[in-house]
Order: sequence, then C-alpha cells, then structure tokens
Amino acid sequence: MRALIEELNKMPGIGARSAERLAFYILKSEQSQALRLAEAIVAVKQSLRHCDSCYNLSDTDQCAICANPKRDHSRVLVVEQPKDLIALELTGMYKGLYHVLMGRLSPLDGIGPGDLTIIQLLARVDAAPGSDHPRVEEVILGLNPTVEGDGTALYLADELRGRRVLVSRLARGLPTGGMLEYANKAVLADAIQGRQSVE
Amino acid sequence: MRALIEELNKMPGIGARSAERLAFYILKSEQSQALRLAEAIVAVKQSLRHCDSCYNLSDTDQCAICANPKRDHSRVLVVEQPKDLIALELTGMYKGLYHVLMGRLSPLDGIGPGDLTIIQLLARVDAAPGSDHPRVEEVILGLNPTVEGDGTALYLADELRGRRVLVSRLARGLPTGGMLEYANKAVLADAIQGRQSVE
Repeated sequence: MRALIEELNKMPGIGARSAERLAFYILKSEQSQALRLAEAIVAVKQSLRHCDSCYNLSDTDQCAICANPKRDHSRVLVVEQPKDLIALELTGMYKGLYHVLMGRLSPLDGIGPGDLTIIQLLARVDAAPGSDHPRVEEVILGLNPTVEGDGTALYLADELRGRRVLVSRLARGLPTGGMLEYANKAVLADAIQGRQSVE
Repeated sequence: MRALIEELNKMPGIGARSAERLAFYILKSEQSQALRLAEAIVAVKQSLRHCDSCYNLSDTDQCAICANPKRDHSRVLVVEQPKDLIALELTGMYKGLYHVLMGRLSPLDGIGPGDLTIIQLLARVDAAPGSDHPRVEEVILGLNPTVEGDGTALYLADELRGRRVLVSRLARGLPTGGMLEYANKAVLADAIQGRQSVE
C-alpha cells in the first residue's frame, strides 16, 4: 500500500493526501476495475509512440491525421507539443497536416535544434513528391506566442528560406471575446500593426 | 456626515464600509486637503467635456490628439469608449486620429445607431478636404472583439461601404505571451484563418 501511495504521489498535481485518497479508492474498488486500470497503464506505455512522419502521438506507424487521404497533404502546421495539435484540431478549422517539434529552442535550458524534430521537418519539405504524398507548399508556424516560441519560429523561418515553400504564421492580435481595455501593450501593438482590410 | 457617506456609497465599487472609511478619512484630513478634493470634483464636471471632432474627453474644444499637427489626420481609429483610446495610446504604435462612439450598438439594451456618434463619424469621412484637415483615407474599426462589438463593426462597415475610404479592423488572433494550449476555439480559429506570410 505504501508503494502505491508513493508512486501516485510522484504524478504531477497529486500531493500526499490525494495519493492516499486514490490508493484507498483503488483498495476499495472491485478487482476487475483495478486490473483494467493497471492494464491500461501498461498498454499505453507499450503501444503509444510517435507518428513516423509528424511525431504526433499515435498507436500505429502513421497517425490518423497523416494517414487520412482527405486531409490537405500540401500544408504542414508546426507546433511545439501534441497538446497544441489537439487544441487546434478541436477548432475543426484546419484540414492540413501537422509537425510536432517535441519542444522549442531554449538555449538557457540547453535545448538546441538537434533536440527537436527540425531535421525531420526540413526533410519533409525537401522530399520529392511521390505517389503517396504531394510536395509541401506551405509551412504554417504555430509555435506559442512567447519569447522562446518566437525565437524558434525565427530559426525555422531562416532554415526554410530559399526552400521553395510558403512560410506563414498564426495570426497575432486581440483574443476574441476579450476587452480592448484589458489587453496589454504587446497585444494592442500586434492588433494595430496586423490590422486587416474589411471588404 | 451621513450625507457624505451616502454620496460616497453611490460610487461604483464603494460599499457601505468603504464609504464610512473614506468619510472618516476626509473628516480627519486637513481643511486645505478636503477643499482641494471638493474643488477638483467641481472642476472636472465644469471643465471636462468631449472633443468637438472625435468625442474623446478633453478640456478644450479640440482634444490634444486632434489638435496635434504631427498626427496622421488621414486615419481614424474608431473605439467604443475613451478608456479604449487611452489603452491604444499607451502602446505608442498609432499615429492617426480617433473617433469615440460613446458605446456600442446593443438592441437588447435599446441602444441604436442614434445613441452613438455614428452620424458624426460619417460626416468626418464625407467632409471635403480643407486647409486644416485632409481627407479621411482609412477608418480602422477598433471595437471590442465581443458579440456586440462585432455587430457594431458590421453596421459601420456597411455604412462606410461605397464611401471611398479604406475600412480595416484590428487584428484578431493569439494574444502575445499566451499559450496555444489554453486559447479557446474561437481564438485558435481566428489565428488559423488570419495567418500571415513570413518574409
């Protein structure tokens, strides 16, 4: 019992008291339910891996998005983490493919270009069009609008320059539903600079 | 004393206890300080009014922005309230003029076009260029990114159509400094749709 509490306690956001409560819940639950939980934990570690082409989480060689012929294979949206991909997929607005960098450049933490899937991204852009995939026409930089995200986007834009591919980035500006008076200077400056004409 | 507490209590965000505390502070303060406060209240009501052309708060016929010959008089940024204007001015990014609507269209609250300074805005756009002012070339819609703000922007874009003026709106998208994974669907959808090419 103490081993279980200790293991639960190591998980993020679960303190000593929560770990105890969870352990007692497992203790009191039915045998079959506890076994299903244990099996699910083992299964996730054994079967879940990264998609061979976009590095999204997947339980097959190619993730469901890369394997879908109805998606627009000529567009690649670059994100930092699989959870960013999930957030973008929930909008239902984007029909292209993704590329998960598995992080962002962070010199202070010792994370350089070699620690990310940048070489793999460039290989996808450089790949000659084949029967199963068309040429990549547009790379959309979807990194976080933070200092490190912007630095990574700048590095990628540099690498992609001269590679015969359109490079774009997600729009920056006022968040829909917010109020102008509570927006900070950087957001308002983006909103003024990036203003768009109304037809 | 009771009258003072009652009057203070009527102000927004000041409850009965705060009103009492403020009243006792005034009671204990020096005569000269209390008089200066009373004079400032009278002065603000007597001298502060709206700029004749943009409806910003001003203590002269023309506000300091409209009277400044160094500003770009061919651009007009439309905002709901003077406090939105202040937020945009703090960025130091915008060099044109403003137009304060004094609210937004809100049919449910009975606020129609006649309750705002829309006629005055259209008159500014239609005005023939004079020696003291050039023609308005661009109207930038800077309403709040809310349902009512969007409705008002749509109404204004309709009214401005065919008036030989460029109509634009502030950029919508990811707020700088935020994280993609915490952005809501509407913000992410705006970010994807409004993506901009990177040179």
